[in-house]
Amino acid sequence: MSAYANKIGVHGLVWAGGWSEAEARSSIEGAKATGYDLIEILLMDPQKVDAQMTRRLLDEYEMQATASFGLSAQTDVSSEEPGRVRAGERLLHDAYAVARDIGVSYVGGVLYGALGKYSAPVSARGRDNSVAALQRLCDAAAGSDIQIGLELVNRYESNMLNTAAQAVEYIDDVGRDNLVIHLDTYHMNIEESDNYAAVLTAGEHLGYVHVGESHRGYLGTGNVDFGSLFRGLAAIGYTGPITFESFSSRIIMPELSYTLAIWRDLWDDNVDLAEHARGFIDAQLRSAVRRRAL
Amino acid sequence: MSAYANKIGVHGLVWAGGWSEAEARSSIEGAKATGYDLIEILLMDPQKVDAQMTRRLLDEYEMQATASFGLSAQTDVSSEEPGRVRAGERLLHDAYAVARDIGVSYVGGVLYGALGKYSAPVSARGRDNSVAALQRLCDAAAGSDIQIGLELVNRYESNMLNTAAQAVEYIDDVGRDNLVIHLDTYHMNIEESDNYAAVLTAGEHLGYVHVGESHRGYLGTGNVDFGSLFRGLAAIGYTGPITFESFSSRIIMPELSYTLAIWRDLWDDNVDLAEHARGFIDAQLRSAVRRRAL
Amino acid sequence: MSAYANKIGVHGLVWAGGWSEAEARSSIEGAKATGYDLIEILLMDPQKVDAQMTRRLLDEYEMQATASFGLSAQTDVSSEEPGRVRAGERLLHDAYAVARDIGVSYVGGVLYGALGKYSAPVSARGRDNSVAALQRLCDAAAGSDIQIGLELVNRYESNMLNTAAQAVEYIDDVGRDNLVIHLDTYHMNIEESDNYAAVLTAGEHLGYVHVGESHRGYLGTGNVDFGSLFRGLAAIGYTGPITFESFSSRIIMPELSYTLAIWRDLWDDNVDLAEHARGFIDAQLRSAVRRRAL
Amino acid sequence: MSAYANKIGVHGLVWAGGWSEAEARSSIEGAKATGYDLIEILLMDPQKVDAQMTRRLLDEYEMQATASFGLSAQTDVSSEEPGRVRAGERLLHDAYAVARDIGVSYVGGVLYGALGKYSAPVSARGRDNSVAALQRLCDAAAGSDIQIGLELVNRYESNMLNTAAQAVEYIDDVGRDNLVIHLDTYHMNIEESDNYAAVLTAGEHLGYVHVGESHRGYLGTGNVDFGSLFRGLAAIGYTGPITFESFSSRIIMPELSYTLAIWRDLWDDNVDLAEHARGFIDAQLRSAVRRRAL
Repeated sequence: MSAYANKIGVHGLVWAGGWSEAEARSSIEGAKATGYDLIEILLMDPQKVDAQMTRRLLDEYEMQATASFGLSAQTDVSSEEPGRVRAGERLLHDAYAVARDIGVSYVGGVLYGALGKYSAPVSARGRDNSVAALQRLCDAAAGSDIQIGLELVNRYESNMLNTAAQAVEYIDDVGRDNLVIHLDTYHMNIEESDNYAAVLTAGEHLGYVHVGESHRGYLGTGNVDFGSLFRGLAAIGYTGPITFESFSSRIIMPELSYTLAIWRDLWDDNVDLAEHARGFIDAQLRSAVRRRAL
Repeated sequence: MSAYANKIGVHGLVWAGGWSEAEARSSIEGAKATGYDLIEILLMDPQKVDAQMTRRLLDEYEMQATASFGLSAQTDVSSEEPGRVRAGERLLHDAYAVARDIGVSYVGGVLYGALGKYSAPVSARGRDNSVAALQRLCDAAAGSDIQIGLELVNRYESNMLNTAAQAVEYIDDVGRDNLVIHLDTYHMNIEESDNYAAVLTAGEHLGYVHVGESHRGYLGTGNVDFGSLFRGLAAIGYTGPITFESFSSRIIMPELSYTLAIWRDLWDDNVDLAEHARGFIDAQLRSAVRRRAL
Repeated sequence: MSAYANKIGVHGLVWAGGWSEAEARSSIEGAKATGYDLIEILLMDPQKVDAQMTRRLLDEYEMQATASFGLSAQTDVSSEEPGRVRAGERLLHDAYAVARDIGVSYVGGVLYGALGKYSAPVSARGRDNSVAALQRLCDAAAGSDIQIGLELVNRYESNMLNTAAQAVEYIDDVGRDNLVIHLDTYHMNIEESDNYAAVLTAGEHLGYVHVGESHRGYLGTGNVDFGSLFRGLAAIGYTGPITFESFSSRIIMPELSYTLAIWRDLWDDNVDLAEHARGFIDAQLRSAVRRRAL
Repeated sequence: MSAYANKIGVHGLVWAGGWSEAEARSSIEGAKATGYDLIEILLMDPQKVDAQMTRRLLDEYEMQATASFGLSAQTDVSSEEPGRVRAGERLLHDAYAVARDIGVSYVGGVLYGALGKYSAPVSARGRDNSVAALQRLCDAAAGSDIQIGLELVNRYESNMLNTAAQAVEYIDDVGRDNLVIHLDTYHMNIEESDNYAAVLTAGEHLGYVHVGESHRGYLGTGNVDFGSLFRGLAAIGYTGPITFESFSSRIIMPELSYTLAIWRDLWDDNVDLAEHARGFIDAQLRSAVRRRAL
C-alpha cells in the first residue's frame, strides 16, 4: 500500500458516539486494525475530549489524528448577533487548543457558520463576521504545523459555503496561508457539477478530503462518482489526507444524528464497513495513479 | 415526438413565483411554447389559486395540469399533536378540492408530513396519523380519475419517506388503489442506491416522476444518472407523466426558496432552461425506448 | 438551436450505401430534413463520386459537406512496400481533389494507413512513409481552407494511431498546420482512458469529432460517456464540426460492412435514428455549455 | 475476504507468455502470492501443456485452475469446409482432454468458431457445424464436473457470438446442460447495451466472468462500468469464478499479441497489476453484496 503518499483516515463516528478513554481506545484500535493511518476526532464539545489521554493512546497505537467539528446556531460566527459570534469564536479557539494539545495536523469542519438548515441566506455583515473570526483562528494557528480547514457542506447544512468556487473566494477574503479547503464527496454529490472539476477548482487550496457515499453508507453502494474524484486528486497531485466518513444511527449519538438527518441504519458492522472502505480507497487511488501514468 | 406515451410536464416555479391570472397565463403559455404537454401547479396555498380561471386558461392553451404541495410544521399530519394533524387534513382536502376543480389528473407532494428539516425521527403514532390522513384523502378522491401521490424527498425534507422501499411499505399500510409513488431524481440522487433499482422497486406503484438535476439547475450539468432512470422507466413500461423541475432564486418566492435551501441562482433564462430540458428529456426517453428494443 | 457555434453533421452511410445522384439527393435531403448542417460524404472510391452533381445538390439544399475515407492494404501508405505507398498516395490526392471540387471544409479518415485489422505492428520505415505521404497531402491542401484530418480508430482498424496522445506526436512529426485530429467516441470508448482527458490531450489540434455509440447504434443506448466528451469540448472551446455516425447492415454496402465488422442490424428507421441523434447532440451540447457557465 | 462465495482468478498471460515448467511455477506462484484462488491456463496449443506437471504444481501451491483457448481459421468449427471443422473438433477434444487431466473446473473461450477478424458473416451451415461440434464436446464432458464455456467476444474477434442474447439462443440450439456463458467486460463494453442488463440476460446460464478494462490495462483506468457488472452479478446471485484478464506486449507472445491487436504496453509490473486487480475486485464485490442488502 505504498503506491501513494496520502495518509488514509477514518472518522471517529464509525467507531463510537463519544470519546471516553474506553471509546477512544476502541476507536483508535479499530482504525489501526482495519488499516488506517489516522483517525478524525470529533470536537463538537472540546471540553469533553481529554487531549493528554488521546495523545497517549495515539502514541501507543502509532496513529495520527485530525480534528473536526461544526458550530451551532448559538455559536454561529456568520450571525449578525455579536453574542453568538463571540461565543462561536471562543469555541473555535477552545477546540483549536484541544486539537493542538492532541497533536493533530488538521482542524476543520463547518467552522465558518452553523452546521444546520438555515431559514435565510447569510447577510453581508454575517459573512464579514465569519471572515474576521477565521482570520483570528488562522492567526492563532500561524506558528504551528496545523492547517485550518473549511469543510464544504450541502445547502441543508450551510447557507454560505456549498461549493469549491465559493470557498476559493472566501479564502481570498480571509487571506491566510494556513486556511485550506476540505472537500466531501457526500456534499459534492449534491452541490458540485462534477467531482473532477471541483477538485481542480480547489486546486492548491485543497487540504483535506472526506470520502463518503451519497447516502452516507458503504462506499460504492450509492451514486457518488468516486472515479472522477480520484482522477481529480491525481491530476492536481494531492498528497494530503483522505478520510472515510459514514454515519449510521447505530453508532452516532441522537442529537448529532438528528442534526445530520440520519434516519436510517445503513450498516451495523463497523469493522466490515471500515475494512471495505480501506480497500475501496486503496483500489481507487491506485487506479488513479496508474491511469495518470498512461 | 410520438415515440412514447408519456406526457411531459414542467413545474410552475420555472415560470413564476405566484399564480395570479397574469402569472398563470404566462406560465401556461411558456410551458406550451417550449413544448410541454402539462404544467404542474403549486397548491401551497390553495385558496390563492383560482380554479375556474386556471381551468379556462388550460383550455385556451390546450394544456393539461397536475398539482403539488407540501405540508408545514403547522399542518403536519405525521405529528403527534391532534391540532396539527387536523389542520393538515383540512389543507389536504382543501387543496384536493381546488385541484379537482382545475381538472388535474394528479395531486401529489409531501402530503404525508411536513416538508422541511425535522429534528427527530417520526414516531409510531405520528406515522399512524399520517397513514389515516392519507386513507381519508384517497377515499375522497376515490370516485375521480385523480391519483394521489407521495413525493419521496431527501432526509432534509422528510424524516419518513426518503426511499422507494419505504414508500411501498407505506402504500401497503394505507391500502388504497389511487395512492401512487412520485419519484424525483434530485432526491433519489441523495437517498437511493441507484435510479434503475429505485424505479423497479416502485414498479406498478409509480405514478409520477420529477426530473431534476443534483443541484436543481440545468439537466445534464450535475451528477444525476439520467440514463439509469430512463432505462428503469422503459423496463417497467411506465407511461405516466414526467415533469421537469428546477428552482432558481430568480423566480421562486423567498419563503419557499428558504425552505428548499435555494441559496444560488443556477439560471436566469427560463425559456432557454425549459427548451433545453424538453429536448433533453426527449432524447433520453427515445434512447431508453430504442435500447429496450435491442 | 443557436446556443453553440458548432456545425452538426451526419454521416452519409446513415442514408445510403452509395452516392448515385438519387442516393446523393435522398441523403442530403434526409440530412436537411432531420436538422443537420452538413453531411459527411464517403470517398472510399473517389472516382465514383460526381463532384459537380454533389456540389449542385448541396447548393440546392443549402447544406455543407465534409469528406472521409480509409486506405486499404493495397493503398497502405504505412507499408514498407513502395508500390502500396505510391498507390496510397495517389488515392489520397485523387480523393482530395474530388473533395475540393465538392467544396468541403474537411477531408479525413484513416488516411495514414490501412483501415483494417493488421497482423503486425507498424514498422519504423512504414511510419516514416506515412508521415511523408501526409506531409505531401497537407502541402497540396495548403492554399485552401480545407483541413486534413487523422481519424483515430481502435486497435482492430489501425496498428498506429489509436489514441490522442499518439496523434499529437504524429502531428508533431508531420509538422503541417492544416493537419488536425479527428476523435470518434466509438473508438475512444475502446482506446482512451476517458473522453474528457482525450479531448484535452488533442486540445488545439482537434478539428473534427465523430459522435457514435459503443455498438454503433442509437446514441444513448450503449456505454459511451457522452457527458465527459461534451464537457471536454466545452472546456477547450471547440467550435468545429460534430458529426453523428452509425452503421447498420440495412444500409451499408456489404464489403465495407464486413471491413467494419457490422454483423448486426441495430436500426432500420434511419429518419428516426437521425432525428433522435440530432436532439441528443443538441441536449448534450447545451448542457455542456450551460455547465461551463456555472 | 470471505464476504462472497466466488473464486477469484487471474489469467496466465499476466505472468508468462508460455507454460514451460519454470513459467508454470512462476505463474502459479505469482497468482498465489497476489491473493488469487485460481489461475486460467491458456490451451492454444494443448500438446505444449504438460498436464501432470501442471497438476503437481497446482497441488503444491494449493491453487485451482481453469483453461481457455480460441480456434483459428484452420480449426474453425463454424466454417463450411469439412476439413477445418474436423480439425477444429479434434482440437476441442484434445484441449478438453488436457484440461481434464489438469483437473480444471472449466474450459472455455472462442470454442465455437475462429478467434479473429472475419471478412463475412457466419453462414447458416457454418453455424450448424458449430452447434454440432459443441454438442459433441459437451457430451464428452458430460460425466465430469467440468463446464464448457462460450466466451463472448467483440465483433473483431467473432462474427457469431458477440452478445449475451445471441449466446442464450445458441445454448438453446445446443441443448446441453454443461454449456455455459462466459462474459468478459472488455468485450461487453463494445457489444452490450449495459453490463447489468447483459448479466441478467445471461442469467442462470452464466458460468464464468472475465474482468478486463476497456483498453485491457489496469482495472479502473478506462471506460468499463464495473459497478453495473458487479450489481448484476449480485442481482442474479452469481457464485462462479471471476477472473482478471489483462494483456501487455511485455508478456504476451507476438503471434497472439497480433491476433488480439495488442500494440501498446499498458503495464510492465505484473505483480503490482495483479495485486491492484485483486483489491479492486474485492472492493467491487463487497460493495455489490452490501448494496444488495440495503
